[in-house]
Amino acid sequence: MGEFELISRYFASSGAKRSDTTIGVGDDGAVLQVRDGYDLVVTTDTMVAGTHFFPDDDPRALGHKLVAVNVSDLAAMGAEPAWLSLALTLPNVDENWLSAFAAGLHETAEYYNCQLIGGDTTRGPLSLTMVAKGIVPRGKAISRSGASVGDYIYVTGTLGDAALGLRLCQGVHQVSKKHQTHILQRFHYPSARVALGQALRNIASSAMDLSDGLYSDIQHIMARSKVGASIDVGKLPLSQALKDSCDPATAIQLALSGGEDYELLFTVPEARRGSLDVLLSPYGIPLSCIGRITGVAGKLELKQAEQQYAYQHQGFTHFS
Amino acid sequence: MGEFELISRYFASSGAKRSDTTIGVGDDGAVLQVRDGYDLVVTTDTMVAGTHFFPDDDPRALGHKLVAVNVSDLAAMGAEPAWLSLALTLPNVDENWLSAFAAGLHETAEYYNCQLIGGDTTRGPLSLTMVAKGIVPRGKAISRSGASVGDYIYVTGTLGDAALGLRLCQGVHQVSKKHQTHILQRFHYPSARVALGQALRNIASSAMDLSDGLYSDIQHIMARSKVGASIDVGKLPLSQALKDSCDPATAIQLALSGGEDYELLFTVPEARRGSLDVLLSPYGIPLSCIGRITGVAGKLELKQAEQQYAYQHQGFTHFS
Repeated sequence: MGEFELISRYFASSGAKRSDTTIGVGDDGAVLQVRDGYDLVVTTDTMVAGTHFFPDDDPRALGHKLVAVNVSDLAAMGAEPAWLSLALTLPNVDENWLSAFAAGLHETAEYYNCQLIGGDTTRGPLSLTMVAKGIVPRGKAISRSGASVGDYIYVTGTLGDAALGLRLCQGVHQVSKKHQTHILQRFHYPSARVALGQALRNIASSAMDLSDGLYSDIQHIMARSKVGASIDVGKLPLSQALKDSCDPATAIQLALSGGEDYELLFTVPEARRGSLDVLLSPYGIPLSCIGRITGVAGKLELKQAEQQYAYQHQGFTHFS
Repeated sequence: MGEFELISRYFASSGAKRSDTTIGVGDDGAVLQVRDGYDLVVTTDTMVAGTHFFPDDDPRALGHKLVAVNVSDLAAMGAEPAWLSLALTLPNVDENWLSAFAAGLHETAEYYNCQLIGGDTTRGPLSLTMVAKGIVPRGKAISRSGASVGDYIYVTGTLGDAALGLRLCQGVHQVSKKHQTHILQRFHYPSARVALGQALRNIASSAMDLSDGLYSDIQHIMARSKVGASIDVGKLPLSQALKDSCDPATAIQLALSGGEDYELLFTVPEARRGSLDVLLSPYGIPLSCIGRITGVAGKLELKQAEQQYAYQHQGFTHFS
């Protein structure tokens, strides 16, 4: 099977169709209509076998995750997901693998109303790169740079579950039978907070998604906004599964330094906290206020019950 | 050096700046203003070490080529290049390599007035993926699907030089001293026909860029336009360097089946041939009319001096 047959069999004609796609897969480039008065938002995520996933991971879950982690970046900026480009590097053509990967990709793309509009297929070590494009009303994208002193810091959902899922897969942490499905789902099938991200457009002063872990990620908001942050680790939202599976210090460690939760981290000025409660309650997504933005630029304080919380961060970086 | 330091040192603040970039490198995504009344054009190209380039190739040339081959796809659609996203997978941090690669990338991006607006940096086998975005007045993108029976087939520049350059690098073909610089330049530093592509918007009925070789590439126009093509191999534009370095049959073979020329292949209806001559002469780019579109869908005829030209295509496909 050649490259073009592969593309037409697995990637040309599945998933969502959008009326604002003029030309999709099959030309030199895709041609897309960005609605007048809207900005385009573009994000990129690469997943490399051996670095970001196990080569024998379920390809359907990989297809899902590749879409979800890209769409999560769009969600964090308040954008409406629209289009996906896929650069797929494969060591060989394994039709079972491709068919399951494409199914996972297409069903998740359809769920988020994203159309796959092109890409490139090459031979080499297994690697998946996706570039997702979304749209947002002009000037309404939520960046990392708008946090101000006194803003309240929020996260969605619960933290640390995906990191526990990774440890379960690696065989370095036990999880009781009744929690395994939930924990593995959180690791293999993350959700992007798309509707919530859009609802935050006029409320949040800054936002980002949690991919590397709260401790590391919040420092991007601090750096871009030139502020500090104080977080009460007692307020970190922990799932029952996490609490039942770990001692309290480990649970906090996974919630702070474990990655891949794909929850939203955002800041809200005092004056808009009321709007937050009123407008967001219909979404049914748990929101937790975990701290405040401070004026000590670059300093991250961790507290518990008003005391300083001693913490040794062990983060993950590909190049250290 | 961590991922974020690497990005800020080599990729955050060089190259072209564009006033329609609201947010570039450093947030969850880039935020871009697509001019009202314009369509967005998106292309993707991946270059994998060992498949598309030699691991010890000059990194500055790789940075150049990655930009040029993507911009060439935009040019083929008549788009104005605007933004680039880079997914860079590296086995380790080699600062000399990175610095030369980034220099090649930035200088070429600047030449085409493209801004690098984000991407992802990961650890793994060396691989470079770029997604280029351009803009084109709404409805004016030139696709592969508009060729009609009787249209004249054109190519820009000369064909086969890059393929000869590859063979020279591989040590399988000799090239005399006086032609080596030209031939290696054509292979390592291809040009994208950006101004010409935009000038073709109201003239060409279909267009694409030549990346896999004329014989293989024209079949994409034939397939998407549901037509056939007849090409006179005697009219293929060959450089003096190619003619001096090869016997006539080999020269034609490289011009037909060698890839990576990044010239434009396009079709023009009879009624617009006059406009072509008048409007395009100021660009100073040689144009050659090499054949006609025929009604025999899917059939590619090769002729020389009105006789059928016997030809055995030996193309390149990553997955066969």
